[in-house]
Amino acid sequence: MVLFSHKTGILLAVVIFLTVTPAQAADPLPSWNEGSAKQEILKFVKESSQRSGASFIPLEERIAVFDNDGTLWVEQPIYTQIVFAIDRVTALAAQHPEWKNQEPFRTILSGDKAAMEKFSLQDIEKVVAVTHSGMTPAAFQKIVKDWLAQAKHPRFQRPYTELVYQPMLEVLKYLRENGFKTYIVTGGGQEFVRAFAEVVYGVPPEQVLGSAARTKFQYDPSGKPELVKTAEVLFVNDKAGKPEGINLIIGRRSVAAFGNSDGDRQMLEWTQAGDGARLMVLVHHDDAEREYAYGSDSKIGTFSDALMEEAQKKGWTVISIKNDWKRIFFSHR
Amino acid sequence: MVLFSHKTGILLAVVIFLTVTPAQAADPLPSWNEGSAKQEILKFVKESSQRSGASFIPLEERIAVFDNDGTLWVEQPIYTQIVFAIDRVTALAAQHPEWKNQEPFRTILSGDKAAMEKFSLQDIEKVVAVTHSGMTPAAFQKIVKDWLAQAKHPRFQRPYTELVYQPMLEVLKYLRENGFKTYIVTGGGQEFVRAFAEVVYGVPPEQVLGSAARTKFQYDPSGKPELVKTAEVLFVNDKAGKPEGINLIIGRRSVAAFGNSDGDRQMLEWTQAGDGARLMVLVHHDDAEREYAYGSDSKIGTFSDALMEEAQKKGWTVISIKNDWKRIFFSHR
Repeated sequence: MVLFSHKTGILLAVVIFLTVTPAQAADPLPSWNEGSAKQEILKFVKESSQRSGASFIPLEERIAVFDNDGTLWVEQPIYTQIVFAIDRVTALAAQHPEWKNQEPFRTILSGDKAAMEKFSLQDIEKVVAVTHSGMTPAAFQKIVKDWLAQAKHPRFQRPYTELVYQPMLEVLKYLRENGFKTYIVTGGGQEFVRAFAEVVYGVPPEQVLGSAARTKFQYDPSGKPELVKTAEVLFVNDKAGKPEGINLIIGRRSVAAFGNSDGDRQMLEWTQAGDGARLMVLVHHDDAEREYAYGSDSKIGTFSDALMEEAQKKGWTVISIKNDWKRIFFSHR
Repeated sequence: MVLFSHKTGILLAVVIFLTVTPAQAADPLPSWNEGSAKQEILKFVKESSQRSGASFIPLEERIAVFDNDGTLWVEQPIYTQIVFAIDRVTALAAQHPEWKNQEPFRTILSGDKAAMEKFSLQDIEKVVAVTHSGMTPAAFQKIVKDWLAQAKHPRFQRPYTELVYQPMLEVLKYLRENGFKTYIVTGGGQEFVRAFAEVVYGVPPEQVLGSAARTKFQYDPSGKPELVKTAEVLFVNDKAGKPEGINLIIGRRSVAAFGNSDGDRQMLEWTQAGDGARLMVLVHHDDAEREYAYGSDSKIGTFSDALMEEAQKKGWTVISIKNDWKRIFFSHR
């Protein structure tokens, strides 16, 4: 019978698969209001897959990069990783009696939130250094996971991993369904973000680029080889460090870049400077009621007037959370 | 007719695909002689894909890492990248009249091969620094590609990209067909290897880890953003640097590791130290007739007696080129 002929069988299979194609008509971005931001994202993704079009992007070059803090999850009133580091100081205080007399640890242990808000970058670096080193990357990620499982955001009283932006989760998924490799390119700690990126964003560890300290290869007392996190900074993945980090770890120029602050400017500029179709997107936090409204005056996630001007001049897509997002945070539905 | 029913159609398609499965019986490693090395590779790959077995490895954890020089291509009588760097000095000499009076450039320009063989590591670093910096990564890769297109190995009189090991190309392919992600983890320059890894090995740039200098983000005179390679070393991806580099760039522990020298020892040790099925392989160059024979006395690709002892003690697979490889170099067939 003809059904057992290999040739015919393959032909049949192809025809059948084409007729069973999943409903392309379903909206891939249901949490987005209709508007130019949504349309620009849809247009870029559709055109990049049309082999005959001028905007076609070969599969292997479909690299999309996303900032994390303020682009994929909430970053106000303070970066989640800093909250984690401060909590770790409290948890480790019993093992460090000397901290009672050392700044900035003394202030943290006193619980003086107003004083903590005045911490300098150096204070924060000290806190991160002692809380992020001295263990294997796996042990560190376990600590982060355990903390994320119980910590709650002060305003929303939900776990931080639920304060990820549902509209952006949809963009990540939509891009991947269209052959894009999605990367996180964060100023935050690479190992910190790796601890949750796979479960929360569907982004595997090899696609998370962040600021990184060196690890040190050594043998434990039993002779077993291990890597231990040190406090020695290898590179800072922010501002100019973002395109530099993309070249180091990916080795290809991104064709789509999503950010929300001055720290993402160089990444968007460098993405745009390549040949062919490009998509540059900035999330603008302008919704104090449902989330936060901040911009040029904010210390966290500064979105300067100069950046807004550049975005307009260069045709970048600016997302207004207030107008473009139907819902903001992760939805179980 | 039943053929147009979607449900039946899908069932049919599945059945047909199963019966048209490519001939699994064909030998995936035809350039290997029968022997324990071949059997150990086949066994590891087969068992890692058997979901019900104790040696099953989830798809996302199938990370295989390969050293480059001496593992995937020839490294004698001198590393290919050094030959490239020396050739570049000659090519650039007209733009650098000062080199006539500066070592080690003076020696290179004199063509004194005996003196060049006595170069110190510092001499070589100087040559690499000036020939590998001052241009964009893309421009550098273009220079490398152009050089590879015309350079020939002094003994075999073939392009270096044809002096890749056919048996290892088969292993790379076989691993990928079984869901492994194949990475190159080289002490050589990351951008140098990226210039040919995709075409020659089927390994894309984001899966090439190597020693790396920093790049610098800047604007060119027309205001266009660009990255420029500097001579500032970011990390040396050799010995302990290999597991450190794997953690930095991949963020997962490799489950299979292939090397050929003392520079790969820590990578193999760290691979083996993880839980579950593992494969550690060393290529031993013992075929002076068809390629080279070298080991503990070689400056290039040192394979010390201590490493051989460790391999035997820990059950690593040692490939004898003489006995295990039917043919050595890339074959057009």
